[in-house]
Amino acid sequence: MPTEQNDPGTIEFPPVPAPDEQASREAVARQAQLTKPAGSLGRLEELGVWFAARQGVCPPHAPARARVVVFAGDHGIAQHGVSAYPPEVTGQMVSNFLSGGAAVNVLASHAGATVRVVDMSVTVDTPPAVSAHKVRRGSGAIDREDALTDEEVRAAVQAGRTIADEEVDSGADLLIAGDMGIGNTTPAAVLISLLTGTEPVAVVGRGTGIDDHAWMRKTAAIRDALRRARKVHNDPIALLRTSTGADIAALAGFLAQAAVRKTPVMLDGVVVGAAALVAEELAPGARQWWLAGHRSAEPGGPLVLQHLDLEPVLDMRLRLGEGSGALTALPVLTAAVKVLGEMATFDEAGVAGEAGA
Amino acid sequence: MPTEQNDPGTIEFPPVPAPDEQASREAVARQAQLTKPAGSLGRLEELGVWFAARQGVCPPHAPARARVVVFAGDHGIAQHGVSAYPPEVTGQMVSNFLSGGAAVNVLASHAGATVRVVDMSVTVDTPPAVSAHKVRRGSGAIDREDALTDEEVRAAVQAGRTIADEEVDSGADLLIAGDMGIGNTTPAAVLISLLTGTEPVAVVGRGTGIDDHAWMRKTAAIRDALRRARKVHNDPIALLRTSTGADIAALAGFLAQAAVRKTPVMLDGVVVGAAALVAEELAPGARQWWLAGHRSAEPGGPLVLQHLDLEPVLDMRLRLGEGSGALTALPVLTAAVKVLGEMATFDEAGVAGEAGA
Repeated sequence: MPTEQNDPGTIEFPPVPAPDEQASREAVARQAQLTKPAGSLGRLEELGVWFAARQGVCPPHAPARARVVVFAGDHGIAQHGVSAYPPEVTGQMVSNFLSGGAAVNVLASHAGATVRVVDMSVTVDTPPAVSAHKVRRGSGAIDREDALTDEEVRAAVQAGRTIADEEVDSGADLLIAGDMGIGNTTPAAVLISLLTGTEPVAVVGRGTGIDDHAWMRKTAAIRDALRRARKVHNDPIALLRTSTGADIAALAGFLAQAAVRKTPVMLDGVVVGAAALVAEELAPGARQWWLAGHRSAEPGGPLVLQHLDLEPVLDMRLRLGEGSGALTALPVLTAAVKVLGEMATFDEAGVAGEAGA
Repeated sequence: MPTEQNDPGTIEFPPVPAPDEQASREAVARQAQLTKPAGSLGRLEELGVWFAARQGVCPPHAPARARVVVFAGDHGIAQHGVSAYPPEVTGQMVSNFLSGGAAVNVLASHAGATVRVVDMSVTVDTPPAVSAHKVRRGSGAIDREDALTDEEVRAAVQAGRTIADEEVDSGADLLIAGDMGIGNTTPAAVLISLLTGTEPVAVVGRGTGIDDHAWMRKTAAIRDALRRARKVHNDPIALLRTSTGADIAALAGFLAQAAVRKTPVMLDGVVVGAAALVAEELAPGARQWWLAGHRSAEPGGPLVLQHLDLEPVLDMRLRLGEGSGALTALPVLTAAVKVLGEMATFDEAGVAGEAGA
């Protein structure tokens, strides 16, 4: 593995390893021996095989150390009326995460996952444990200025890599990426429009639930931001610098590095998905390590899934972020893994196989 | 409540009580106060409200005593090549359920539910605890004879009612209906075709995974069975007698009685769904107490959901039965209930609400 992996001066990622084909074949063969008609558990069977190939063993172990990392940041664009909520909500929600009252806390507790919150660029001060990787207070308003300096974008991507390394080294066997930041679906829409080649109006969603006037302001901001972003659309780092924020840049580094470290990741909604598009550019093939937790109600969500060729586990019209959709899907993934590992085979149970087979 | 409720001589159900509108309104109001944009948890919010209205309290308690009842039975039609598996698999799978090796066992354990197996009409002997309600050994081949006698159909429906009563009286706060029986998607297709007004060929699925020849035999059997069923299509009891089996008749009684007892039920796949169509005829409004766990990969599944106006929680191409799809959805329902009960409100968390709101 290249030695520059953790050198802050560069953002080159080593090649992404492939999942384990042998474990995948063993899992497919085992599914056919379990006491159920072949294929009758549909997507649940596929998820079990998918996880076996990522864990490199069949049968796989159910995820025991699932970890959600919520990347929080403020966005200058939020000062310009693109959200239904005032910008100070980002910092208030970080406090809510830390006191356990948010959706991510409830859903993580239910699914047996733990939560880490990372302040990458929140405007207000947050506790030291959360702000250790903080790059700046708020990212630039991307309709008129770069979100980050060149140094900041490298620091943010590197922070995401470091966080992925820390979590994998601490034993996480499944990572879940989450986001929090008033205004963050605006940079997400810019990335998705640019990287999937979709007209901006088809990408712009209601975010937190904006009205028609805010939707027009958001669309105009995205149009202006796209003018600046198009000039650098072949350079993922420059794209993160001009058009995103420290939170999204860190997410991209996190998603790419998780794949380098052969650790499966559940993607959440439209902001994580937008970061995933960039991460796949930074570390081609990283998407092999990602599972889409759900299909977001935001229009950009399905575009990301289509572009990355990912089939979501759930489709429940969620659009909250925080990792909430992925966490809702986590018990379903665990169910799939347990089916593969714990069901009896036809031989073990003394059940006859297919007639004539 | 009419006193004939548990009289074996009749199969009239008392009126189905309505869910609690007040609890529903309180739940909707509470969702709007929780620290998330209004509506951003989509279907998860709706499920929480749904459950609150069925439990009659807001916030509702997460299901703590979820109980799966698997109704097992053999079908004469299975002797005529409509399944990929030989008929003896029904009895073998009952043994597999009892030793804990089947999908229903693994998924119930994962979801925190317990499993009860009921032999209504399995050909072979099963343990007394399982066969206490057994009506006969195998139901008639419905393409040429009645599935049950008049006395048997009444006994089977009554057994389903009694089982629902037993489970509710034992403290079950959520019931899940499951099925097991080689050949049972054939009577299910007859019911679904007849009660939803759908051409048989649009209802006939691959069941356990049959080939084209078996599919043609199955379609012919359904066509023949429909000739007999059409004569009694307005009489749900006669329909159960001519065209189903003791397992499906018991399922219908179970689903209707759960609603009478104001206990929410998660429906599973196409066989449970077919029984639900009859249960809704037996006890109009019973469907208000049912939640569709998933959209089955069998073509009849979506037809049932459409007819009963039920939106499934999951859509994962499952077609196993046993309650497996409902059990896969159970952790998602529980997540929805916990979100409603455990998240902090804007006031509690000191988070600002919508700008200008």
